[in-house]
Amino acid sequence: MPAAFTAQDYAARMKRAADDAAQSGLAGVLVTPGPDLVWLTGYQPTAITERMTVLVLAAGHAPKLMVPKLERPDAQAAVGAPALEFAEWTDGSDPYDATAPLLDPNGHYGIADSAWALHLLGLLRALPRLQFSALTDAMPMLRAVKDDHELDRLAAAGAAADATYEQILSVRFAGRKETEVAADLARLLQEHGHEQVDFTVVGSGPNGANPHHEAGERTIETGDTVVLDFGGLKDGYGSDTTRTVHVGQDPSDEVRRVHDVVREAQQTAFEAVRPGVTCQEIDRVARRVITDAGYGEYFIHRTGHGIGVTTHEPPYLVEGETQTLVPGMCFSIEPGVYLPGRFGVRIEDIVTVTATQAKRLNNTDHRMKLVT
Amino acid sequence: MPAAFTAQDYAARMKRAADDAAQSGLAGVLVTPGPDLVWLTGYQPTAITERMTVLVLAAGHAPKLMVPKLERPDAQAAVGAPALEFAEWTDGSDPYDATAPLLDPNGHYGIADSAWALHLLGLLRALPRLQFSALTDAMPMLRAVKDDHELDRLAAAGAAADATYEQILSVRFAGRKETEVAADLARLLQEHGHEQVDFTVVGSGPNGANPHHEAGERTIETGDTVVLDFGGLKDGYGSDTTRTVHVGQDPSDEVRRVHDVVREAQQTAFEAVRPGVTCQEIDRVARRVITDAGYGEYFIHRTGHGIGVTTHEPPYLVEGETQTLVPGMCFSIEPGVYLPGRFGVRIEDIVTVTATQAKRLNNTDHRMKLVT
Repeated sequence: MPAAFTAQDYAARMKRAADDAAQSGLAGVLVTPGPDLVWLTGYQPTAITERMTVLVLAAGHAPKLMVPKLERPDAQAAVGAPALEFAEWTDGSDPYDATAPLLDPNGHYGIADSAWALHLLGLLRALPRLQFSALTDAMPMLRAVKDDHELDRLAAAGAAADATYEQILSVRFAGRKETEVAADLARLLQEHGHEQVDFTVVGSGPNGANPHHEAGERTIETGDTVVLDFGGLKDGYGSDTTRTVHVGQDPSDEVRRVHDVVREAQQTAFEAVRPGVTCQEIDRVARRVITDAGYGEYFIHRTGHGIGVTTHEPPYLVEGETQTLVPGMCFSIEPGVYLPGRFGVRIEDIVTVTATQAKRLNNTDHRMKLVT
Repeated sequence: MPAAFTAQDYAARMKRAADDAAQSGLAGVLVTPGPDLVWLTGYQPTAITERMTVLVLAAGHAPKLMVPKLERPDAQAAVGAPALEFAEWTDGSDPYDATAPLLDPNGHYGIADSAWALHLLGLLRALPRLQFSALTDAMPMLRAVKDDHELDRLAAAGAAADATYEQILSVRFAGRKETEVAADLARLLQEHGHEQVDFTVVGSGPNGANPHHEAGERTIETGDTVVLDFGGLKDGYGSDTTRTVHVGQDPSDEVRRVHDVVREAQQTAFEAVRPGVTCQEIDRVARRVITDAGYGEYFIHRTGHGIGVTTHEPPYLVEGETQTLVPGMCFSIEPGVYLPGRFGVRIEDIVTVTATQAKRLNNTDHRMKLVT
């Protein structure tokens, strides 16, 4: 187990968020339950529901957490609780009216991306002059740069995913359903310390050409190309890696060629990473390799996404994202080629930006492995 | 397995939602992934993410589903897809700009409660004159009245939860941790057909006095009162039941008295249910029994919540809710008393409103059972 985050760690994150908000011209930050709240306070309610909980951060003020009365004991047990001032509302009263006195009625607030419309609109009903921007738009860097303790956890999650991959190569593929191999992946992730499995994609044959296919009832056959994309959370931090394997006999020349192209795109993008380069440039570098090989129209998604306490977060490596890379950022590089009705290939590593280049947090072989 | 919902079922639900919206003076309904989308279309993406998917319903127009290009194959495979017109956006383009032509730029839309702030604010950026109301506020009845097929599923989910309760009475409590009994509950719910376990509360001794306590490391002891509150989804519809048991020796007079009061409150509220009564009246009836017994300040939550494709939804049985009960509504009746630092008691059944009264979907004995 890594060293636990302390009340001081959470207090420092909350202070930084409030200060960053002020520097961005915001009155503060509003955070409902979800990854931002976990990152800022260590508090994760049992469920995210219609009963509003909201953290209010504003520079120069103590952080305040408005909670439903019956959830207060849980909230007060959070590691970050010592830095919080608590307020509560009771079933039958209006939580938005109760929260209004904690806010600047004319303020422009950053709000957690995944805050429910119900709550945002409720706050607007109580204070009609409030303005909001989603945190991804207003403060995309809030969680993007990881500190050393976070990097340790992301590296450990990556190593656990790598161990899962090494072991999945030994299981039987041919004659089993995708869902069965997916269950193996989930079990292995858990055995290697993941407390949460977020996805276990097993895209065999034509299913591999649908990049968001999870795992289905299709029986894997000898001769299939199979995309394996899996990850989740280990000690609160994410893993996400993809390798493409081939079942049984040698892959066709075309499968080999596509795999080589994707592998080169991944490597070239990896080598392009250094501080100061824009996110979109990494996407362009990967896309150029695939386009030059004639498969550009079959690379139908962005090149990558950030990772931390979630498996999808800023920075996004996508055309139009002009954010520059900063040491400590962690994200996926995952180019792919998807030939509809036939097969798909994707190779994905999580990398982190160092002072001068990129470092992989996934380190298994990129070459296409044969499975049985 | 119950009969599957058909494309026609989903088309009818979408038409009704669009018509209801028009009757409520709304331009239409916007639904991002979550329970409303499942209920309206049968479509549930692998994950709810920053990549926007949105269903646009407006009276007199075909339902339109805007999806990320790479999720389109999954969306088109949904049972409700035949009634949908599809539109797509691609990574690197703006999904909100892409959605704008599907909307009335001056329209007031109902939007799914759990729609992300990121998406609501993105749509507002593209069309600044849009107005929004959360569906729970604007159209609380949308999913509240269940049809016969839905009632069958809710009854089956309730029966599965009841079977779980009957079996949990035989497991060992004393000397085991709450989390171990919670794991037993989860396993039993799954054995009885639940594909999703939402909560397995095991609140022993003082932990029972925290109504939102899930299950912790506390070792259950002889003499403890234990609140068991568990549920999830079976064939897509929810279960949620609570019983309070006692470990070993006879409960104290006070535990018996509190249990009797809660049981009477539950029964009295149950008997008060009939079409035309307001939601808040059911809350008042339950609360009056508990208040008259001197425990009013220890009943710190509302009396109940609706249930359907989620385990928490309108109607809410809470002070201030003047919605009247309608045949086909399904909700929990779950009064409780929580004595801080000591113990808690809660008894919960899901009930449905019939033409003349209430019918329980949970039917296990309300008397306090002794466990070992």
